[in-house]
Amino acid sequence: MKIAVTGLGLIGGSIAKELNHPYSKYTIFGVDTNESHCEQALELGLVESIKTLDEALEECQAIILAVPVDGIEKMLPYVMGAVREDQVVFDVGSTKALICKSVSDHPMRHRFVASHPLAGTEFSGPKAAHLNLFRGKKNIICEEELSDRDAVEFVEHIFKGMGMKSYFLSAEEHDKHMAFVSHLSHVSSFALSQTVLDIEKDEKQIFNLASTGFASTARLAKCNPITWTAIFEKNIEYLSEALDAYIKHCQHFKQLLDDRDMKGMHEAIVKANEIDRVLKGIVINKK
Amino acid sequence: MKIAVTGLGLIGGSIAKELNHPYSKYTIFGVDTNESHCEQALELGLVESIKTLDEALEECQAIILAVPVDGIEKMLPYVMGAVREDQVVFDVGSTKALICKSVSDHPMRHRFVASHPLAGTEFSGPKAAHLNLFRGKKNIICEEELSDRDAVEFVEHIFKGMGMKSYFLSAEEHDKHMAFVSHLSHVSSFALSQTVLDIEKDEKQIFNLASTGFASTARLAKCNPITWTAIFEKNIEYLSEALDAYIKHCQHFKQLLDDRDMKGMHEAIVKANEIDRVLKGIVINKK
Repeated sequence: MKIAVTGLGLIGGSIAKELNHPYSKYTIFGVDTNESHCEQALELGLVESIKTLDEALEECQAIILAVPVDGIEKMLPYVMGAVREDQVVFDVGSTKALICKSVSDHPMRHRFVASHPLAGTEFSGPKAAHLNLFRGKKNIICEEELSDRDAVEFVEHIFKGMGMKSYFLSAEEHDKHMAFVSHLSHVSSFALSQTVLDIEKDEKQIFNLASTGFASTARLAKCNPITWTAIFEKNIEYLSEALDAYIKHCQHFKQLLDDRDMKGMHEAIVKANEIDRVLKGIVINKK
Repeated sequence: MKIAVTGLGLIGGSIAKELNHPYSKYTIFGVDTNESHCEQALELGLVESIKTLDEALEECQAIILAVPVDGIEKMLPYVMGAVREDQVVFDVGSTKALICKSVSDHPMRHRFVASHPLAGTEFSGPKAAHLNLFRGKKNIICEEELSDRDAVEFVEHIFKGMGMKSYFLSAEEHDKHMAFVSHLSHVSSFALSQTVLDIEKDEKQIFNLASTGFASTARLAKCNPITWTAIFEKNIEYLSEALDAYIKHCQHFKQLLDDRDMKGMHEAIVKANEIDRVLKGIVINKK
């Protein structure tokens, strides 16, 4: 069976690497407009060869869309216009509502499965691709009622082979939740990075003092600007809501400081400590 | 040579563990008002035995203060009042200006070395103590001109044995820089935790979607409330300034979203990406 991976970055590249196993029953082709990414993917053995999108649509039984989310939204109607009943298309984008909306009335909608494997690192490009990125993590499938059962089962099978269990959620729920537990984390890292880079202009040696706590909270500030601008753009309302709530909490901490209310500060930290029970359930990436 | 470690938490416990090596020329005693911490430290072999502060001051050649920073500030004048010329006292507190000020006019100030090993994890108590917490990290010594040379050299020697290099900085510079590259990271994590815990009240399954990016940015939200309330209290002005700058950056991100200014968003993320060169220099904890 032939599978095309469109977009050979961190996620697409890692999927290709998992599927392109020496004993794999699948033959994996890459589709990417970035020539250097194509060359790297070939060199790294992520894909068998490179094809155009039209060639992939003609020859492959499954098409995986792993380009930035604005690109998925744009190309999906075209892809579904070319797809046949014996083919499956699925995406791996970090936002789901607008992608689903782009083909909601499409006559071939049933051959598309909207999915989002919850995995990633702060690195990007084919060289960032690695095995085990997905191991122990969750995959989300949205609007599964609009997809053919065999198509959903195929997507579940593909992600199960990478160590993921699939869960079902509406596209709106998905985007709202992601705003809070993923996209907001990225904004907080970007803002932290900018705050400290500003100060560095006057305090040259400040970074000699940065330790692992800073590294942990600022790690996501290294994330790819093209990928993340698109994700933010496609989840503006929920992310703006999450960021508004976050800013209010930050302002509350500042108020506690300015009021020298250390009893209130202690209570606020005790409340924040509750996150422990949540973090216990998260599997950390192992490269 | 006998050394007393006062405060057997994450930092004090880890120092005790390093010093209490089977072949060590030092004999390590623990001082702590928390009885269960004393028992744990003995069980874990962190210390030889437990002493009162007065016993330690009588018998030990070096006294290490590793209690929360408000405790260090309170006990330091008492400790310096009891100390002899052949003894050395040093602290490991995360703030330095008020601690230094508490003994600035003390006749025995020259036997005190104000230090801050830049290391830690989100865990606390003697059980969190581990070897290699300090390996490859930096130690800061403040106001070294007010300490006797032999005392400074002793402290440098102690931290060098744990794998740390010592750097010299004024107490004010130290506190300002720490506000930006450490304390602010903790506030951002606490606020992130609170924001998401609030939402969880209505959205029960939200945390099924939390992934490694969230875990990384929210990790510090597990930090000990007693330790961190004290650190924030002893660095209020600089932390309030850092938090103010951070909130402005967060508000700018929200404005970019609300204006749908995706060109501006892309530029903001590219700017934040510059943190990469900083993070490259930070050694990650290995337990």
